[in-house]
Amino acid sequence: MNELRYEDGGVKGINAAYIGGGSRGWAWGFMRDLAADRRMEGEVRLYDIDRKAARNNAVIGARISAHSDAASKWVYVTSGSLREALTGADIVVISILPATFKEMESDVHAPERYGVWQSVGDTVGPGGFMRAMRAIPMYVEIAEAIRDYAPKAWVINYTNPMGVCMRTLYEVFPEIKAFGCCHEVFGAQKLLADMLADLRGITGVSRREIKVNVSGLNHFTWFDSASYKGMDLFPLYEEFIQKYYETGFAEKDDNWMNNSFECAHRVKFDLFRRYGLIAAAGDRHLAEFMPNVYLTSPETVKGWKFGLTSVKWRFDDLEKRLAISESLVRGDTPVEITPSGEEGHLLIKALLGLGDLVSNVNLPNKGQIENLPREVVVETNAIFRGGEIRPVLAGALPPNLLPIVAEHAHNQENTVKAGLFCDYKLGLSTFANDPSMRNVNLADAEELYISMLKAQEAYLPEPWRKYVGL
Amino acid sequence: MNELRYEDGGVKGINAAYIGGGSRGWAWGFMRDLAADRRMEGEVRLYDIDRKAARNNAVIGARISAHSDAASKWVYVTSGSLREALTGADIVVISILPATFKEMESDVHAPERYGVWQSVGDTVGPGGFMRAMRAIPMYVEIAEAIRDYAPKAWVINYTNPMGVCMRTLYEVFPEIKAFGCCHEVFGAQKLLADMLADLRGITGVSRREIKVNVSGLNHFTWFDSASYKGMDLFPLYEEFIQKYYETGFAEKDDNWMNNSFECAHRVKFDLFRRYGLIAAAGDRHLAEFMPNVYLTSPETVKGWKFGLTSVKWRFDDLEKRLAISESLVRGDTPVEITPSGEEGHLLIKALLGLGDLVSNVNLPNKGQIENLPREVVVETNAIFRGGEIRPVLAGALPPNLLPIVAEHAHNQENTVKAGLFCDYKLGLSTFANDPSMRNVNLADAEELYISMLKAQEAYLPEPWRKYVGL
Amino acid sequence: MNELRYEDGGVKGINAAYIGGGSRGWAWGFMRDLAADRRMEGEVRLYDIDRKAARNNAVIGARISAHSDAASKWVYVTSGSLREALTGADIVVISILPATFKEMESDVHAPERYGVWQSVGDTVGPGGFMRAMRAIPMYVEIAEAIRDYAPKAWVINYTNPMGVCMRTLYEVFPEIKAFGCCHEVFGAQKLLADMLADLRGITGVSRREIKVNVSGLNHFTWFDSASYKGMDLFPLYEEFIQKYYETGFAEKDDNWMNNSFECAHRVKFDLFRRYGLIAAAGDRHLAEFMPNVYLTSPETVKGWKFGLTSVKWRFDDLEKRLAISESLVRGDTPVEITPSGEEGHLLIKALLGLGDLVSNVNLPNKGQIENLPREVVVETNAIFRGGEIRPVLAGALPPNLLPIVAEHAHNQENTVKAGLFCDYKLGLSTFANDPSMRNVNLADAEELYISMLKAQEAYLPEPWRKYVGL
Amino acid sequence: MNELRYEDGGVKGINAAYIGGGSRGWAWGFMRDLAADRRMEGEVRLYDIDRKAARNNAVIGARISAHSDAASKWVYVTSGSLREALTGADIVVISILPATFKEMESDVHAPERYGVWQSVGDTVGPGGFMRAMRAIPMYVEIAEAIRDYAPKAWVINYTNPMGVCMRTLYEVFPEIKAFGCCHEVFGAQKLLADMLADLRGITGVSRREIKVNVSGLNHFTWFDSASYKGMDLFPLYEEFIQKYYETGFAEKDDNWMNNSFECAHRVKFDLFRRYGLIAAAGDRHLAEFMPNVYLTSPETVKGWKFGLTSVKWRFDDLEKRLAISESLVRGDTPVEITPSGEEGHLLIKALLGLGDLVSNVNLPNKGQIENLPREVVVETNAIFRGGEIRPVLAGALPPNLLPIVAEHAHNQENTVKAGLFCDYKLGLSTFANDPSMRNVNLADAEELYISMLKAQEAYLPEPWRKYVGL
Repeated sequence: MNELRYEDGGVKGINAAYIGGGSRGWAWGFMRDLAADRRMEGEVRLYDIDRKAARNNAVIGARISAHSDAASKWVYVTSGSLREALTGADIVVISILPATFKEMESDVHAPERYGVWQSVGDTVGPGGFMRAMRAIPMYVEIAEAIRDYAPKAWVINYTNPMGVCMRTLYEVFPEIKAFGCCHEVFGAQKLLADMLADLRGITGVSRREIKVNVSGLNHFTWFDSASYKGMDLFPLYEEFIQKYYETGFAEKDDNWMNNSFECAHRVKFDLFRRYGLIAAAGDRHLAEFMPNVYLTSPETVKGWKFGLTSVKWRFDDLEKRLAISESLVRGDTPVEITPSGEEGHLLIKALLGLGDLVSNVNLPNKGQIENLPREVVVETNAIFRGGEIRPVLAGALPPNLLPIVAEHAHNQENTVKAGLFCDYKLGLSTFANDPSMRNVNLADAEELYISMLKAQEAYLPEPWRKYVGL
Repeated sequence: MNELRYEDGGVKGINAAYIGGGSRGWAWGFMRDLAADRRMEGEVRLYDIDRKAARNNAVIGARISAHSDAASKWVYVTSGSLREALTGADIVVISILPATFKEMESDVHAPERYGVWQSVGDTVGPGGFMRAMRAIPMYVEIAEAIRDYAPKAWVINYTNPMGVCMRTLYEVFPEIKAFGCCHEVFGAQKLLADMLADLRGITGVSRREIKVNVSGLNHFTWFDSASYKGMDLFPLYEEFIQKYYETGFAEKDDNWMNNSFECAHRVKFDLFRRYGLIAAAGDRHLAEFMPNVYLTSPETVKGWKFGLTSVKWRFDDLEKRLAISESLVRGDTPVEITPSGEEGHLLIKALLGLGDLVSNVNLPNKGQIENLPREVVVETNAIFRGGEIRPVLAGALPPNLLPIVAEHAHNQENTVKAGLFCDYKLGLSTFANDPSMRNVNLADAEELYISMLKAQEAYLPEPWRKYVGL
Repeated sequence: MNELRYEDGGVKGINAAYIGGGSRGWAWGFMRDLAADRRMEGEVRLYDIDRKAARNNAVIGARISAHSDAASKWVYVTSGSLREALTGADIVVISILPATFKEMESDVHAPERYGVWQSVGDTVGPGGFMRAMRAIPMYVEIAEAIRDYAPKAWVINYTNPMGVCMRTLYEVFPEIKAFGCCHEVFGAQKLLADMLADLRGITGVSRREIKVNVSGLNHFTWFDSASYKGMDLFPLYEEFIQKYYETGFAEKDDNWMNNSFECAHRVKFDLFRRYGLIAAAGDRHLAEFMPNVYLTSPETVKGWKFGLTSVKWRFDDLEKRLAISESLVRGDTPVEITPSGEEGHLLIKALLGLGDLVSNVNLPNKGQIENLPREVVVETNAIFRGGEIRPVLAGALPPNLLPIVAEHAHNQENTVKAGLFCDYKLGLSTFANDPSMRNVNLADAEELYISMLKAQEAYLPEPWRKYVGL
Repeated sequence: MNELRYEDGGVKGINAAYIGGGSRGWAWGFMRDLAADRRMEGEVRLYDIDRKAARNNAVIGARISAHSDAASKWVYVTSGSLREALTGADIVVISILPATFKEMESDVHAPERYGVWQSVGDTVGPGGFMRAMRAIPMYVEIAEAIRDYAPKAWVINYTNPMGVCMRTLYEVFPEIKAFGCCHEVFGAQKLLADMLADLRGITGVSRREIKVNVSGLNHFTWFDSASYKGMDLFPLYEEFIQKYYETGFAEKDDNWMNNSFECAHRVKFDLFRRYGLIAAAGDRHLAEFMPNVYLTSPETVKGWKFGLTSVKWRFDDLEKRLAISESLVRGDTPVEITPSGEEGHLLIKALLGLGDLVSNVNLPNKGQIENLPREVVVETNAIFRGGEIRPVLAGALPPNLLPIVAEHAHNQENTVKAGLFCDYKLGLSTFANDPSMRNVNLADAEELYISMLKAQEAYLPEPWRKYVGL
């Protein structure tokens, strides 16, 4: 193991643990970002229950590190256990898939038989709830391991359901230095940049030049102020909606993901008309927080011009990414040092004292959002700098929006409690309280609840198994 | 005017103002209750915009006071203005109908064209919202009059929407000594008494012997504890539900109201299964707080065995009560000194120092419900005694129920703000936020909003009239 | 063991555990009060580390129970352990002396060498702090025993420091149903009754007829409203102070305590002039919360006409009470069924469902005092009735008084934390933060801190002993 | 008037109003800082009730602007009224002396006759209170003028008592965009930089490289974390105190102020031993918050090695500064473009969108300090950037320090209320509640209160004048 030290205006000897280090996609971007930055250097320990995937990424990481454009050299190794990965770690990255797409198939599609449609199914709704039930025990294990082996490490979470995962970490180990990152807000900043080009011909604006105040829950996040070089962007956004409310704004997305993730921002535009704030996540996510408006049927979804991401699509996409992985490992596809667009590496840099940074982050509410309950995990801006993350006061959510956000904040808390304490009754209430389930009567809701719990048999803790007769 | 004085273990010279004193029904009960109590005496000034109705009640009051069974003599006069009624008042009773059944017809039935059904339409939902829009300016006027002419009087409100009316009083005149009374909780206590008879053969139990902790919003009120002589009633209630969940419990209601108000408590039983608490209001009211479960169609309502109270029924019922009124005035129907079942007179007695009383009451939340926002009008127990009402700490609502109650608490606040400040946008958000409206798209919601506002043309303040093009 | 049962309009088969049951004085009154009440009957198990004292009280209890005036028969036994005393208990009374007068001698008199005078030394100040350090481990043990053997029992605490003892019980066993009773408030009510006689010739008023709103900390409790049959007593109290500010009001106290406890209420009167509220505790206690005003020297104390209760006096008094005890045991002094003036038995009765009662009580702050921190033990009114104690909302302390009360509330919390976690540094800060110690420099404060900790050698937990070199 | 516009990567056409623009000292530094910055340009309107002083500064400002080293050209004019100065202002600077040194003489020295010593007398204690009583009406006038003429301007306050002045601005005009700046924190950062040199030989560290978390009240501000390039400075500070606790650390201060402001940091060191946090203000200010420890007599003060700043010294110093002013106006003393060490101009730049900045600032508490009351003006870090100031969450004050800070927070609130509402009684309670006055009996306190109020006859609003018989 290395020892962290300050040298040449940078930091060397960093020990990073990457839980879920077999990731095909996100991990590659992270490794490229590290390679592109000359001020940090160290070792990344890849840990994954899919050992082969981790080993593949160690090979890919080595290729990236060896690339001639790489500004710094990182060492990639695999770890056989959480303990091995975490011991001595300065930084921990968590980015896992809770279980497999098989369980996710139940999450997303089982509720359809009661007319409940979900566009993603990983955050709220019956799918988000079930994903939470299996993610929570995994995060209990991770939190305990961090407490035991790396209690002072900075911990970045990328896994969904973000709020639930973060809350579990803090519930199990309150002193943990964890924060949750999500790029949905970046997308909303980019939309504002596109708007500047579309309406005013101002091009080349980077999303970081769009200054926003961020407030809400992950995937149901909002801007109540947005400016570009002192120019208030709200009047422009109204003009933009005037122009594109009906048609939607056809953004071209050139990243690796296909159109299953595209949207025309009509949900966003409608939310602005309803609440006067800029919703700052993809429409597929936003819609799930107000399902009775946007998700009542596949036709409704079509009308709002976003997509229902089927799990079938995910299976197909995974196959493609597995092929890319193999090709990268073999060296058939060359690695490149291009930025991922994420900013995890920048946050780490700031926390190590190499410059201050303001960014959006998910943390337990200590008052950063005045009128949401304390401890609920919320998303706001924070200042990252040498040794500390301090959320800024985002203020209060406006009264017209508050009931909707507060409802989901309470549900999030209940989901965490139900999962942590394997509380069948609270779980059922919470499952049935989700707005998407309010049209389903209690007996049907319970039938669905039990059958969805059963569908994830392999990941349920003992008490749950007993409740549902496994 | 009299002067209040303590004599013979009682209080004489009480000045009471009765706003809405032309009431046909509730007023008669109140006058009978006063007559039956030997420890209070004074004058009641009846004020009503329907002058004739007030004059009739003055005649009826005089007949009651002159009855041989009357234990005390009260004088009934009519007042020509709020000022006249209020000046020097020790007690103010407010029990008005905000506008007429014509406006209520729009409240209840207009939303049906978008598939939105309401069983009462006076508390929440589009009907409750519209009723609030016209009640708020009336309550502003009343609050200002109390501030100017009777700032130290105790003020009892009986008008719905209770929360909105109470909140307006406190918003306009924060020092007001107002509290809101509602008998729905009494009904739930009686149901528990009936249950004791049905399951255990314990008969003759009075509702006041059923000790309950009350917590929630008016018409969406809950018991989280209930006991009879030290016996916990929750296990009994579970047994009761086991027996009657499917059939409902066919309570016979022998008061003057017809079956339009009856219910079989199936909604209450279902809510207990969902949340583990005893809902403490009539099913017709409760259902409106979870309309997507209980009010999706007239068939659903039938299945839950409660009724949709049509405004046609109200018109018919009013005609009957008008006939009774005329008959009482003429002396054709004799008055009787029978208790009304209400307890307004008992609360007044306690406030005057004639004994302590614990009862449920609507007041701005100062912490009596720990996890609802401050200032929202909530219903809990309070101790009434010489010169003060002090709410007891009802504790926190349980987490599974909290999201639902909190949602309505926020809506209540927004309704009040929209009404007070004639805020078109906040009004529209709030109108559309109600769970019953969440399936209606924004354009339709706005169409309904405008047309319902127009339907109450005669009672809208100027700014609203302009917004909706009147 | 008996089983609790409702019979003949009362409760029989009550099991009460009395921790500190060897008490000479308070226990006798409690036993008389029980005997005088015909609606409760059962067994009291006396537990005391002074076994002989407990045995003596069992004999005295038996004599009281056998008295011809006794309305009910109670059985008195002694218990050899907490476990034995508590198992199956419905009611637990705790009234102990933390350690002996030897330790208290240090509490009260050691600080005098730095010019710090204390009139009681059992609540705040260096004496109160030290008493807390030895009471906390005792209360940890008691709380654990209640959790293990009588988790559903009602627990009444009478021991000082009240706030610290109560807070420890709730910290160790949060579900405990404990409340703290103190008669200081009764004395203030009696003073108001005496005032009615002195100023208006209204005699024979019982303290329970004086309705007060109680708010503050134990021994630093306040009335912000007080009335007698609807008459506001505040103007009268101003008149009273006008008359007696200089001379004091020479109350005759006819109970068994000698003049070491008397006061002329000059501190109370001065506090009214400072803050406009009626302080509701004896002057000796009140003075210790503002020592820089009232306790700067024995001469100052004399000027304010209250006394410094020396521990020498306590030793002498104890001897007298020991003699009475022996005489009662032998039967030389006959027992009598006279009321003690306390109301513990009435509260028990109310909790068992035999009538409602409003009284002052010490409980963790859940919002009953709006502007003191949550969880601090505060004293306010509460309603006691079948199965529950619910504090009433006492409101906010007035701004001018708030800084003084809040300061002590914070100190109380710190004292508890220092004691529970044997935190030397927090203990020292807290010890030095007390206003009586603010004139003492840090080195002197630490010397005193250590030497006073050493003086209670026999009762200090291990970590403390190490810190101070024992 | 100019119009603000973005040009060449900077902002031109800025309109600044300077209230108290006749300042001799602080204003000169501000004008130099503006001149040195090439990215801002505009006009400063100097307003002062001392017209001549303002005119002199306009001349000096013109000289600075004309200096060959000036990177930008600012125009300086004088305004005859608040209205004239404020209309159209983008930025408002307030830096006034509330009344004159004559009034301050009473503030500082009158209490000495009761043994109350003050080292500054402008923040808390009897002097701070009296200064507040005359500053509050001035700030009411200023707040109203800003509301009427420059409601959207950024407002920087430098006047003491900081908390009271800021609170008044927000109380009168809640939408004001005001913040309060103070350089005391900078001094504490510099001390840590000096420490790095003294203990580790690390020289040339700028105070901005010392990253601190700031929390507390102005002049009673604290660091609970401090680092330099990732190095935790707390262990070093302990070592530093070990070395210098007895002797003090003899800092050489090379600015224009003489030794009346110097200190040896012994108070700071003692506070660290008491509370474990780094106090972040000059000892003269800190001492006034714990007067019973540090200010009991001039000898005590000498022992702690700080000074009592007499008002005599202030008179003498003023004369010197008047002479410099005349010399600058005449051109006898040449102006120079040297940095003042303040950062007001940097904050303005950040607010205009020219880069982000984190700095300490005084603002009403919206939760940035978790355990102080809301609305009290507190000092913490905030992020300044395009169009917004957002305080960071500073967290909770540690429990051992909380009672002391909370006490002063409450006093600050009471002082503001007493001043705003001319509340004689609340004023007296508050005056007497200050820890420095707790040894003074109520009659003496009232005598001092009245006589000190009288001493500022010329500045007291009518109601006060009546109370004290003027």
